Amino acid sequence: MTNAERRSFWTWGHVSDEPTDEVRLAAAKAASKRTGIEVLPPPIPSIDSISLRPSRLTVPTSLRDFVTDAKTDRITHTYGGHSLELLRAIRGQFDEPPDAVAYPESEDQLEKALEWCVTNKITVIPYGGGTSVVWGLNVPRDSEYAVTIDLERMNQILDIDEVSRAANFQAGIYGPDLEAKLKTKGLTLRHYPQSFPWSTVGGWVATRSGGHYATNHTHIDDFVESIRMLSPTGWYESRRLPGSGAGPSPDRMVIGSEGTLGIISSCWLRLQKRPTYRASAGVLFRDWYDGTEAVRAIVQTKLHPANLRILDPVEAQSAAGVTGSKALLIIGFESADIPQRYFIEQAVAIARDHGGMIDDQAIVVDDGSGSATGRGGSVGAWRNAFIGVNAGTHLGLGVLSDTFETAITWDRWPNFDETIRTRVGAQLKETIGQGATLSCRFTHVYPDGPAPYYTFSGQVPIGEEHAIWHAIKTAANDAIVDAGGTVTHHHAVGRMHRNAWERQRPERFGDMLRAVKRTLDPGGNLNPGVLVNP
Amino acid sequence: MTNAERRSFWTWGHVSDEPTDEVRLAAAKAASKRTGIEVLPPPIPSIDSISLRPSRLTVPTSLRDFVTDAKTDRITHTYGGHSLELLRAIRGQFDEPPDAVAYPESEDQLEKALEWCVTNKITVIPYGGGTSVVWGLNVPRDSEYAVTIDLERMNQILDIDEVSRAANFQAGIYGPDLEAKLKTKGLTLRHYPQSFPWSTVGGWVATRSGGHYATNHTHIDDFVESIRMLSPTGWYESRRLPGSGAGPSPDRMVIGSEGTLGIISSCWLRLQKRPTYRASAGVLFRDWYDGTEAVRAIVQTKLHPANLRILDPVEAQSAAGVTGSKALLIIGFESADIPQRYFIEQAVAIARDHGGMIDDQAIVVDDGSGSATGRGGSVGAWRNAFIGVNAGTHLGLGVLSDTFETAITWDRWPNFDETIRTRVGAQLKETIGQGATLSCRFTHVYPDGPAPYYTFSGQVPIGEEHAIWHAIKTAANDAIVDAGGTVTHHHAVGRMHRNAWERQRPERFGDMLRAVKRTLDPGGNLNPGVLVNP
Repeated sequence: MTNAERRSFWTWGHVSDEPTDEVRLAAAKAASKRTGIEVLPPPIPSIDSISLRPSRLTVPTSLRDFVTDAKTDRITHTYGGHSLELLRAIRGQFDEPPDAVAYPESEDQLEKALEWCVTNKITVIPYGGGTSVVWGLNVPRDSEYAVTIDLERMNQILDIDEVSRAANFQAGIYGPDLEAKLKTKGLTLRHYPQSFPWSTVGGWVATRSGGHYATNHTHIDDFVESIRMLSPTGWYESRRLPGSGAGPSPDRMVIGSEGTLGIISSCWLRLQKRPTYRASAGVLFRDWYDGTEAVRAIVQTKLHPANLRILDPVEAQSAAGVTGSKALLIIGFESADIPQRYFIEQAVAIARDHGGMIDDQAIVVDDGSGSATGRGGSVGAWRNAFIGVNAGTHLGLGVLSDTFETAITWDRWPNFDETIRTRVGAQLKETIGQGATLSCRFTHVYPDGPAPYYTFSGQVPIGEEHAIWHAIKTAANDAIVDAGGTVTHHHAVGRMHRNAWERQRPERFGDMLRAVKRTLDPGGNLNPGVLVNP
Repeated sequence: MTNAERRSFWTWGHVSDEPTDEVRLAAAKAASKRTGIEVLPPPIPSIDSISLRPSRLTVPTSLRDFVTDAKTDRITHTYGGHSLELLRAIRGQFDEPPDAVAYPESEDQLEKALEWCVTNKITVIPYGGGTSVVWGLNVPRDSEYAVTIDLERMNQILDIDEVSRAANFQAGIYGPDLEAKLKTKGLTLRHYPQSFPWSTVGGWVATRSGGHYATNHTHIDDFVESIRMLSPTGWYESRRLPGSGAGPSPDRMVIGSEGTLGIISSCWLRLQKRPTYRASAGVLFRDWYDGTEAVRAIVQTKLHPANLRILDPVEAQSAAGVTGSKALLIIGFESADIPQRYFIEQAVAIARDHGGMIDDQAIVVDDGSGSATGRGGSVGAWRNAFIGVNAGTHLGLGVLSDTFETAITWDRWPNFDETIRTRVGAQLKETIGQGATLSCRFTHVYPDGPAPYYTFSGQVPIGEEHAIWHAIKTAANDAIVDAGGTVTHHHAVGRMHRNAWERQRPERFGDMLRAVKRTLDPGGNLNPGVLVNP
């Protein structure tokens, strides 16, 4: 009855997105070669072979058109997209599945599903594309009943306003679908989180996702004009406005609420004309901190480049093929209306003033053909490494690889970086040993500070992934909080960052959020335990 | 014991800011000539001559160093800066003065003042520069006791971070003082609300003020890095961060809370290097809507001009001396690092494509001398008209003049403008008659819509100002809400916009704000009746 058969239970997206046996075997061979320890990809269990707790609910007859307790649907909605969850999935461990999954096709069905849950004290998990990497989609152990509400059938563009450049999207529309539809009008949302192919507008708004732009407008908030959300106490709808002088914002209260206040049904997001003028440059630095100083100088000019991402020498080598221990700064400008040569020349001049190396002919400018400029050389190599996230490829090989993110004001950089590398490095050495790596890039930058993004990886004994990950993540959170940063910059809070986030924010803010939640969700049905401690 | 003697009770700012008798007489003569009705400036009462309700409080001995119930202090803190309030003031009507005024010099004194109020169920009115034009500073009639807490003695810059470009300001520092101090470091906040000379950092943050930049970063929110605020339940302090991925923002919950949650003690705001490259242009349009289409085209390019303000023909004539029924578009660019000729040329080309008229030599570019480019011609004339607000000059002359603001998406413009002019125009005709004027300019613009700012004025019978103003304001609010706009874009909500704002926002949002307020202010001491209905 549903499209959910197509959804994969062990990688991001649908069954067709699953890595093939060949790809998994190649990854295993590479890991074996790197570590000297022979590993093989574990078998993927069939859905039939997985043992699952029976549903604790009986779906009312009136809801059976769009609510199911079928095993496949419950299995494919048990986990989000974090690698430890997917690891549990390929091991057939589904201890806390939802008791049913609802696929409303309309606001009327959405209302009926929520009403059923609220009346019967059923925990509700709002579900977009399922790529949450912060444990935002799990059924709490102490929930008596739980239903996941998957918005995938509410996936239309309801309206496009070409004059104001905005569109009204249903929450369940996926990134590629919406871009394909907007393209026919010469428009684009240009919001590309790394999960783009497998995540939805509703998920982006609910998790305050960070997207394409490395400077200026970095988060989805900057594109939200209004939101329509169903809460247990009724509809919550803000007015489409380009700006407002009122105090706390009705939208900003919902953006990033991670399904704890209601289920986003649709929202108006700001669009733009598709860029036709582009310019990009990859600038090398012998010294990582010379490079980050160049980033500071460029972002503080307010040229607002679309891309201004620097990779440390480890990432420059592994992701972009840069040799000789050099950092790589990727600068990109784009516009639908204005030639961009002037902008890139200004930015490159600043980079060179800080020791950046680039030949004039390596500055790629396309003034009007509409073709992308960032597809060749090291810039293109990095782009390909970024876009092709495949969450399932390394599962079960003992390859522990994860990222953590932060943001910090410039005055504390580079000391902050040294602290993080020292403290997390010590933990990596203790738990993984010599083969572990730790690297950094900036995903977004602001005039007052960067958003550094750290990647760690290493080979660990199979079966010890969870314990070792936990030790490293705790070390990272502690180091970040102690050094003055934030434990989340664009991955949201979920359950993973909840306690560490509590230590970095005003003490009473949790009480305020709980008070807000009680107002819209007095029964506490919605995603309990996410964002704030209950 | 205080500096409050220097504060004026009938205009914005201090006694030295009061318009002279000569200035008031000239205004009266101009009004008489314009209307044919002879008017004279009414006498300003002396403080001694004003009869004031005795204070209902006894200031505890331990607080007398910084809390006073002196008549002058109570009179100068009875009203905000709206012209109807100042009109009451020059008529000696002070029905609801605070019972005492506190001038804490330190956080310790601030704590003591608030504790006294909370313990004794005293209403607390946080007070910055007193320029609120939305009735945000008044003592509610049903408060048994009320104390105004004036932050003017907490007026230091606590720290300047030149690397990240940010500074930690105490809430009571005034605009000109902070700019003078930052100038010595080559830095600037560049936040110039029209109240700039007489308003404070704390006031800007508490009211979500709109400032210098007409595009991109228009409101103070964009400059707030962190806030330290004292609430009845203790200190609320956010972490200095350039960005964060967490949900509802601790800062965004406080910005624009208008003194209902706590008293802002200090905050970190983002700064920038002082601009040295500037370019400006005044472009004329025969047709107002051709001009606004040019604005849309320019703002949608994301060139991010610092200034992009268009005046309709009425305002272009009255404020900038433009003759012949033409609209005036003022375009300005600025940068500390990048020559701006390229930017202004792009913007002017777009304006010309839409029928804009400007000679090449009228495009003023200063590439590096640091001197301003917007001080001559019609652009400079407008600037001078904007900066010199003097709230007291026309008081008591029967000159009713006020503004109302909004924001609306482009798809509804120009129909929106026509609706507002028709409906408010009809009300003006009914209550004022033929001499009334209604005009419009854009104060800020966004890719998805403008923030139109309307000015109305006319001569009314002395004594009928309040009733006529109320009829016009109600018509304006109704027209705006019905036509899909917002009743506040940068003047805040206060008591003036509270009911109309309620009609434009999600129904449950008021409950959410009340729940937030109860968390931080369980006794309801802080500025009751402002922002939300209690």
